[in-house]
Amino acid sequence: MSLTRVQRNAQKAGRSLANRETPFIYNEWYVVALSRELSRELTPRTVLGRQIVMFRKEDGTPVALDNRCGHRSFPLSRSTLDGDTVVCGYHGLRYNDQGVCVEVPSQCNCAGISIRSYPLHQQGPIIWIWMGEPEEADLSKIPAMPMLEEGWVTSEDYMPLKASYVYLHENLLDLTHLSFLHANTFGTPDYARAEFDTDIGEDRFLLKRYVVPTRLPPVWAKPTGLEGKDAARITTSDFVSPALHIVHAEFYDVSLSEAERPDQRIKTAHIPTPETATSTHYFVVHGRNFAREENEVTEFMHEQLMAAFNEDVVGLEAMEELLASRSDDDDFFEISLKADSASLSMRRYLKRRAEAEAAEREADSQANPQTQVAKPVQALA
Amino acid sequence: MSLTRVQRNAQKAGRSLANRETPFIYNEWYVVALSRELSRELTPRTVLGRQIVMFRKEDGTPVALDNRCGHRSFPLSRSTLDGDTVVCGYHGLRYNDQGVCVEVPSQCNCAGISIRSYPLHQQGPIIWIWMGEPEEADLSKIPAMPMLEEGWVTSEDYMPLKASYVYLHENLLDLTHLSFLHANTFGTPDYARAEFDTDIGEDRFLLKRYVVPTRLPPVWAKPTGLEGKDAARITTSDFVSPALHIVHAEFYDVSLSEAERPDQRIKTAHIPTPETATSTHYFVVHGRNFAREENEVTEFMHEQLMAAFNEDVVGLEAMEELLASRSDDDDFFEISLKADSASLSMRRYLKRRAEAEAAEREADSQANPQTQVAKPVQALA
Amino acid sequence: MSLTRVQRNAQKAGRSLANRETPFIYNEWYVVALSRELSRELTPRTVLGRQIVMFRKEDGTPVALDNRCGHRSFPLSRSTLDGDTVVCGYHGLRYNDQGVCVEVPSQCNCAGISIRSYPLHQQGPIIWIWMGEPEEADLSKIPAMPMLEEGWVTSEDYMPLKASYVYLHENLLDLTHLSFLHANTFGTPDYARAEFDTDIGEDRFLLKRYVVPTRLPPVWAKPTGLEGKDAARITTSDFVSPALHIVHAEFYDVSLSEAERPDQRIKTAHIPTPETATSTHYFVVHGRNFAREENEVTEFMHEQLMAAFNEDVVGLEAMEELLASRSDDDDFFEISLKADSASLSMRRYLKRRAEAEAAEREADSQANPQTQVAKPVQALA
Repeated sequence: MSLTRVQRNAQKAGRSLANRETPFIYNEWYVVALSRELSRELTPRTVLGRQIVMFRKEDGTPVALDNRCGHRSFPLSRSTLDGDTVVCGYHGLRYNDQGVCVEVPSQCNCAGISIRSYPLHQQGPIIWIWMGEPEEADLSKIPAMPMLEEGWVTSEDYMPLKASYVYLHENLLDLTHLSFLHANTFGTPDYARAEFDTDIGEDRFLLKRYVVPTRLPPVWAKPTGLEGKDAARITTSDFVSPALHIVHAEFYDVSLSEAERPDQRIKTAHIPTPETATSTHYFVVHGRNFAREENEVTEFMHEQLMAAFNEDVVGLEAMEELLASRSDDDDFFEISLKADSASLSMRRYLKRRAEAEAAEREADSQANPQTQVAKPVQALA
Repeated sequence: MSLTRVQRNAQKAGRSLANRETPFIYNEWYVVALSRELSRELTPRTVLGRQIVMFRKEDGTPVALDNRCGHRSFPLSRSTLDGDTVVCGYHGLRYNDQGVCVEVPSQCNCAGISIRSYPLHQQGPIIWIWMGEPEEADLSKIPAMPMLEEGWVTSEDYMPLKASYVYLHENLLDLTHLSFLHANTFGTPDYARAEFDTDIGEDRFLLKRYVVPTRLPPVWAKPTGLEGKDAARITTSDFVSPALHIVHAEFYDVSLSEAERPDQRIKTAHIPTPETATSTHYFVVHGRNFAREENEVTEFMHEQLMAAFNEDVVGLEAMEELLASRSDDDDFFEISLKADSASLSMRRYLKRRAEAEAAEREADSQANPQTQVAKPVQALA
Repeated sequence: MSLTRVQRNAQKAGRSLANRETPFIYNEWYVVALSRELSRELTPRTVLGRQIVMFRKEDGTPVALDNRCGHRSFPLSRSTLDGDTVVCGYHGLRYNDQGVCVEVPSQCNCAGISIRSYPLHQQGPIIWIWMGEPEEADLSKIPAMPMLEEGWVTSEDYMPLKASYVYLHENLLDLTHLSFLHANTFGTPDYARAEFDTDIGEDRFLLKRYVVPTRLPPVWAKPTGLEGKDAARITTSDFVSPALHIVHAEFYDVSLSEAERPDQRIKTAHIPTPETATSTHYFVVHGRNFAREENEVTEFMHEQLMAAFNEDVVGLEAMEELLASRSDDDDFFEISLKADSASLSMRRYLKRRAEAEAAEREADSQANPQTQVAKPVQALA
């Protein structure tokens, strides 16, 4: 069907934007689990389309291996954890925490059998994983989580999201949706019309929104004592990496001078780890630097925030459902607004990163063609 | 596997017949809803594979728009109807009944943003939609519905059907199935063997079947007073358009002379609107020109007929299920009978129409290549 | 992602092995049903991806036809059995037990209409079917079922298996899995480490495992009276055909001389009939040559064995689920062990057979191009 000029231009512009069909970006640290999720149970999870199994060693160290036994693809998550080794439930191959097979019951020798293991790093309530090229795994690349530093009180949670992680990032970089999607929770009508600045870098994309003066919703008003007052609500959406978005907000009574204002800030890490192209593990770590001794504030804010973030889940899943059931892409377009400027740069960045990695993988597989001289079938014969 | 000569010929002949893989025909008026289905609720429906949202304006006029917000694909059916405008539930874009965006909360200007709106036409109990080229929408092309004229009493209904609309048309053009699929409702054993005429035109296909003399099933016998009598049952299956099939039937006591016979006719519109390639919105409008004051006759006939038409739904869905789970099409064939002559012409016609439209769309997209110089990403920056 | 040398070699070697994507082998007798499953009900089943319907004639002879009416694809399993003919539930076409249409109610003539019928052969508790080239159907090709001979007591059963038949064959040719997958039923820890011989022929693959001395699990110990004794358990896994695998086992008290040992053997036919590429009809016929008069032994062994075989079903389905949800096959490999030698030969054989048949079908369809001069559309006009 014919499109308008604006629709056609939007369609063309869309070709440079990451979307639900864009390949994964592997060379990043992603959060694979909340620390409290891992135990002595063999726990399966799909991350970047890859099926892994996780467990804690006897000393508590977390481990991640491919979930597929290298012999005949039996899921190790259906197998047995024996000390710090996993014994496959089918033919008994035993793997250590590096994915190296250390025992094949039916023969003496198991030299050379291995499956992939993935570097993990536990940081307080979360566990990071490196799914990329092993030689590039480097703890210094783990993005900073400022709410996990001294002086902040945090709570954390997890929600499965049946939508691409790209749209969760985009959701977070344009908070004008608070007035609509979150009208019943922490949005206010003035949010969408508030002024904003953007700070668009090469790999970092910020949007700062000034809702001043405003009335705060209960989640912020109650713990800050700003109920019924003219307040400032200044929020920064900060795309830190494909694996991490942090929302910073500060609140103060606009009748106070700068010197008189107490330091009342929150920092929420929104952590979208791709499961498949159209599903995401959505982790949240929320921190505040005020009312730090009050557990009931922690509980109140956690409950209120998760209710609001669940509205994002419901909304993004409705979009995904609509996109998944479209029968024709010839007339697909997304018209962008001024408020999308940071998001558009971010989506172009994701697409460039994903395509550069895909090209590299392609070049690697050309350099290591699979047609080279075949070795004997049985590696261990 | 090898086929017999008859099977092989049938396979070849099948290539010119529309089936569950044939593209949609867009340039037709289709029934999109019963009038009573539309209200002030935002109501989603998929028609010809396209996701639309419908509602009634404050003055009752029905409206159909694309269900996808032009900004970020949020379903408008999950949004808010405000007066005669729809406010997107994600970022608040407001669309009027023409699909023109009249407000973007986060900016002053929304010139140029629009989504598609679809011409609708309410005709008594049903609402027609035009999904084709907008410039060809022309109310005069809406096919006649004679049972909606003066002097007829009607009832209407809707059933979802998980099968291609093509097979529903075919079902209706060969009523020999009444003796078998409808053996327990309004079929009689003599139906399949009754004589018939066909009238095969360029775009209209009729088959008239003379079951004379016969005993009428209760649905016709009771309201006509022909119970236990030797009656005539003369039925015309009339393919009016890809969107409409009308079954006309007349009943009389064969012992009466032509002059003595009361005029007792029914006309049933079978209205198959494709939802997807393999599912159909099946609307029915049934009319009679006798016993017009008797509401209980309306109820009785409606209930009896819908029970019978539900047998078609069950049967066509069983066929679709079988076809969908076939793993190999090399040996697929449909052998045709004499009773299929009108149906075969009809299916060739649907295939020609569909292919001609597809070719036109292809030519259009060649003429409007999407590689022309790109405009700025943000239409409204 | 980069693979180790061992993984890469395994990947390459895997290309010659049958797996869940390998085409079916048609020119074999397969078991289509237990004899007790067929009756005067029209019973549908999918075999080698093909949808058939089965019933017994009035004299008890079993019949299998394509389930698809040759006219308009109505499922005959939803139709009516009338004497020894099937009357299609849509337009009443009547087929005899050869698939020949003998009546078309709407016309006099039905010469030439037919659907495919499949040769069946009932052998005690099971019914064989020939899905291959009709001219090659030859009862002498039905593989021997020695447990159905004189002097053996049998029981039989059926389980649906959501996994490729290839992996069930492989499962059976390497019983080292008894120590792990069947640790709670009939496996013992020493099984995996027991010595074995292989006998690898052109189309027959055997692996014989000597677990001596051992303690027998209850399923074997109780009926043989070898509870608590040092026993021999000597098991032969015998791939007889793509449709049949027989496990033979003998048990004896190792303190007895060869002459003193009673003849105590079991033979279990594991019969994997492909339903689709990733699902299998798993039939079992189990026989023993001892304790032949004791019905409670039959019941006890049957129950114990089916519980154990169900562990295979659960395990193979877990593998299939994992394989089906993989998003990337670039890094797929299966590393093989010494114990896999017979299995690898068997999988190469299945692959060669499947590809040879596929090539033959391709050649046939080239020789019978479907572009030859078209015959009239209506075979019977």
